[in-house]
Order: sequence, then C-alpha cells, then structure tokens
Amino acid sequence: MPHIIIGVMGPGTGATAADQQTAYHLGQHIAQQGWILLTGGRNVGVMDAASRGAKASGGLTIGILPTATTEQMSPAVDLPILTDMGQARNAINVLSSRVVIACGLGAGTLSEIALALKTNRPVVLLHVDNAIADPLQQLDPALIHRAHHVAHAIDLVQQCLAEATFS
Amino acid sequence: MPHIIIGVMGPGTGATAADQQTAYHLGQHIAQQGWILLTGGRNVGVMDAASRGAKASGGLTIGILPTATTEQMSPAVDLPILTDMGQARNAINVLSSRVVIACGLGAGTLSEIALALKTNRPVVLLHVDNAIADPLQQLDPALIHRAHHVAHAIDLVQQCLAEATFS
Amino acid sequence: MPHIIIGVMGPGTGATAADQQTAYHLGQHIAQQGWILLTGGRNVGVMDAASRGAKASGGLTIGILPTATTEQMSPAVDLPILTDMGQARNAINVLSSRVVIACGLGAGTLSEIALALKTNRPVVLLHVDNAIADPLQQLDPALIHRAHHVAHAIDLVQQCLAEATFS
Amino acid sequence: MPHIIIGVMGPGTGATAADQQTAYHLGQHIAQQGWILLTGGRNVGVMDAASRGAKASGGLTIGILPTATTEQMSPAVDLPILTDMGQARNAINVLSSRVVIACGLGAGTLSEIALALKTNRPVVLLHVDNAIADPLQQLDPALIHRAHHVAHAIDLVQQCLAEATFS
Repeated sequence: MPHIIIGVMGPGTGATAADQQTAYHLGQHIAQQGWILLTGGRNVGVMDAASRGAKASGGLTIGILPTATTEQMSPAVDLPILTDMGQARNAINVLSSRVVIACGLGAGTLSEIALALKTNRPVVLLHVDNAIADPLQQLDPALIHRAHHVAHAIDLVQQCLAEATFS
Repeated sequence: MPHIIIGVMGPGTGATAADQQTAYHLGQHIAQQGWILLTGGRNVGVMDAASRGAKASGGLTIGILPTATTEQMSPAVDLPILTDMGQARNAINVLSSRVVIACGLGAGTLSEIALALKTNRPVVLLHVDNAIADPLQQLDPALIHRAHHVAHAIDLVQQCLAEATFS
Repeated sequence: MPHIIIGVMGPGTGATAADQQTAYHLGQHIAQQGWILLTGGRNVGVMDAASRGAKASGGLTIGILPTATTEQMSPAVDLPILTDMGQARNAINVLSSRVVIACGLGAGTLSEIALALKTNRPVVLLHVDNAIADPLQQLDPALIHRAHHVAHAIDLVQQCLAEATFS
Repeated sequence: MPHIIIGVMGPGTGATAADQQTAYHLGQHIAQQGWILLTGGRNVGVMDAASRGAKASGGLTIGILPTATTEQMSPAVDLPILTDMGQARNAINVLSSRVVIACGLGAGTLSEIALALKTNRPVVLLHVDNAIADPLQQLDPALIHRAHHVAHAIDLVQQCLAEATFS
C-alpha cells in the first residue's frame, strides 16, 4: 500500500504570521499521524512552515517545485520533485494528495482548491475568510470542509480518508 | 506582431443555456474584433458555444485540449493543441490569453480565474454570481473586471489590451 | 474540420547554417501546401527559420513556447502558446502535429522524435546522420521516414497524411 | 539536505526478461546505497521490477505516474505522484533524478535519455545496444556513461554524484 500523502497549500510570500504558525502545527500533526506531507516546496510562507513542522516531528516531506532547480527550495523538503512547470504543477499537487488542506488564501492557493474540486479531492479550509469559504462550499458542498483549528483539520482529514476510496 | 488571443473559459457540461448563449455571442464579437479565440477546446458548454460563435463570424479558433486526441473536440475548433495534460492545461489556457473572459463558473473555470491572477493576466467576469465575484475582486482588484453584458465585456477587454504590456 | 498542423523540430542555438536554410524552405513549402506550421517558437535555429519561411510564403505559424512570456519568441510566430513548462512542452509539440519533421538533431529534437514514436505520430527525418537515423528507424520502422531533401520531405508528409487517421 | 533520488527508466510492456531482472537488481543496489528510487511508477516492465527490487532491500520508492489514478501503479511504489500528464511527465522523471539510469530501451526511455541530456542530468546506459548507445554518447560525451553490469552502473552513479553540483 502506498503511503498516505496529505497536501498543505497556502500563500508563499503573502502568508501571514498566523498562516505560517498554523502551517507549522499542521506539519507537526501530519507527521505525528504517520502521513507524508506534500507542499509546493518553496522556501517561503505556508510551504516552508509546514515542511519545517513536519521535519520537527520526524516526518517525511515532498516538495513539488515549480522550477528546474532546488535554489528556492525549503531546506525542510526531503524529496524534491522538480517539475519546471510553473503554476501547472498545482494540478500535480492536488492530484497527488489524498486530502488537500488550504491554510490561508492567495491566488495560487485558490487555484489549488479549485483544481482539487475539479479532480475530486477533498479540501479542508483553515484560515480562509467566510467571504470566499462560503461560495466555495456552495460550489461543492461534498468536497469542501471547514476547520476551526489545527486539531479540527486533522480530524476532518481522518474522516475524509475513512470515507474516500482512492484509485 | 503576434495575433491577439482572447480566452473564453467557462463550464463544460455544467453550463447553463444562458452561459452558452452568451458564450456564442462572445465568440462572435471576438471574431468581429479580429482577435483569435482560445478555449479549452471540448465539444461541450461554453468552450463549444464560444468556438461556434467565432466561426459563425469568420474567426479563427484555438482549442487547448486536455486529451491526446480530438475525439471530444468541438467541431468549431480550427487549431487543436493536444496537451494530454488534463487540468494542468488550464495554466496554458490563461498564459496564452492576453485577456481571460470567464463566462459562468464551475470548478475548472475558477481554477482558470485563479491561475490568471497568479500569472498576471486580466480577467473579465460575466455570468458570475456576486457571491464569488466579490471576493475574487477583493483578492486582486487590479486584474478582476466585471461585465454586465457581452458588449461591456468586449469594452473591458479593449481597455485591458490598451493598458497591458505583454511580453 | 480542423486545419492540418505540421511540426518542424530541430536544434535551437546548435543549428547549422544548412539546418536553418533547409528549415526556411520547409516553412515555405508547408505554407504553400496550406498547412499550419507548428514549432517550439523560440527566436533561434530551426524554429525561427521555419517560421520565417512559412511567413514569407503567406502561412500561419504556431509557436509552443517553453516560457511564460514572448521575450525569446521568434518574430515570425503568429500564435504564441505560452506553456511555462520547459522541455515538458516537447510532448505538446508532437501531439499537436499530424506529422513531425525533424530538421537536424540536438538533444531536444531527439526527445521530440522519441515522444512522437511513443505517442504514435509519424516522423520525417531530414539532415539527421545515418548513425542515429538507422537505429531510430530500427526502433520504429512504421513511423520513421527519411527524406533526402525538402521536396521529398513534403512528399513523405503527404503520404503520411493520406494514410493516417487522426483522432 | 534532500535525499538523493536516482531514476531508473526503461521499457514498460516491451521490457525483456533480462531488462526486468537487471532492473530488480538495480533497485536493490540503489536501496542498499541509501538512495531513493524514482521511476515512471507503472505496474509493468522496468519501472515495476526496479521498484520491487528497492522494496526487497528496504528502500523507499517514488512513482511519477502519467495518470490521474493509481489503478495501473506498481504495488511496490511507496509515494505515488499523480501527474495526469501522459508522456510530458518524462521531463519530471529526469529533472527530479540526480542521475538517470536507462535499463533497456524503448521510445519512452529514449525520450527520457534525450530530455536528461537537454536538462543536464547524467545518464548511465545499461542494456542499451551499441547501435544507439554510440550515437547517444557522441551527442553528449560528458553526460552519457555506459555500464557493463549493475555494480558498474552503481559505481558510475557514485562518480556522477561526486562530480555533480545539484541546484
């Protein structure tokens, strides 16, 4: 059986301090569950913080990089997948994740949420304003889940994994 | 100088009759302006209707297909670009469009709007509910434009082209 | 019916003067046949020469660029498709071409020949040394065709089009 | 520091019994070196055999799948990266590998060798006929290495890693 890969998506340079702190805790919890963390792999924002959290708790981290090199890679990425595909790699991020957690919101994160819905991956929203979370949930009530804090997000991921068949 | 390529994105099988009628008129107007129409190329919904409209007004149509074959291609596509890249081709759709018009909204369309913002392409929204158009505009007020009808959308595209530098 | 798109692939900065001269003539002949020319779109080598040839004979040219911008685009490209996917766009080049003509050989060209064989597209070799053309033909005798000069290459493309079903 | 990822590429359904036996041993040796194995991830040929070998020696395996699902995945893949990008994923295979080992040769493998040369990744050829290995070596003498057996291939990978700077 393949390992369980959980994606954490969120803003890069636009991430708030709260987004990054929460992403760090998400990374820790994901590692503690024995899941593998997948992010966009860059050395900024939510990607970097989640990867550092996962490493701090002994986890394994995959980074799906938009570039052909590791120059802008988070030092907490164990397994760099170099796509050189820019934002087209966002589609790989969500396809490869059993569940996608969006922590904070930027244009890139929104593209990943939308691609997840399009390709039938459950999404857990954390630190996403109601103004956008409400219409997203209306767009696909079955796939969009809303978490109030990190432990709640992890509970929702577990529920998604229990329900989901993954092929 | 390369031709001016304008993208029209919108739901496939989920398109409403109004979405399709509007898309057909968008295709006609785009052709009448001498612009090239770019869509996702499939034989359903907004992609198909816009392509048929453009052909009815003597325009040229590009279809960026998610598949490796033309089996599900709109018969109104002149130039099939076969990507075999599924939803990752949405990134190509927006990068290759000088301006992106979203006509109606599904998960795929939303991914294209978000990818356009991420890669700095202006977006004109038509037939998009305020519930989602409002937060999108808040996410990037400079790039999101809202049209009330087809002629208004064409005016907004012209303004974007006048302002934009494209490299 | 979609237009007939013929791809011309070959070295960029590594192209010889003979490669470029032949590519220019290929572009002219392709345009004279009423076919659409597809290349990798950059402003160097075979891509650029073929595109200039096609324009000189009144043809239409598509450039599938590896970049997100048109900065390094051949000025003879009419329709820039911006992929921002680096060499992964080579797969799109061959999938979108009814027949692929390789004019000269570099590593990128070789990847396109191999991807064409893998995805069942006929390939016409011109200016390719026997040392590599022989084993390529042995790898797939049905899809590899060898031309002695430009008019011969065009004849071979016509034969491929007559035989091929394209879906 | 990220883990060292070594790619093993080779024919799928076209693999010979010898290709598969050698791929299995390559997988074992790669795991014994503490390297991570990367393949195209499918449940056939060299990809499958190398992954099974790596698992038999306690290694970790990444599969870069051309599909959106794990239906045709090797059961020996630990970390499925689902690209849904068909043969375009071959570019990711080689970019993400510090060194690429080609074991046997089909059109897909040849595309990966060529993409590796294009993107400056060292390639070790094993079970590749001289008829094609000779011109490949001539195309890029610095990046093409030829191994006589599995232990030799591993030695060559070690030399490449010692020489290479990876960014």
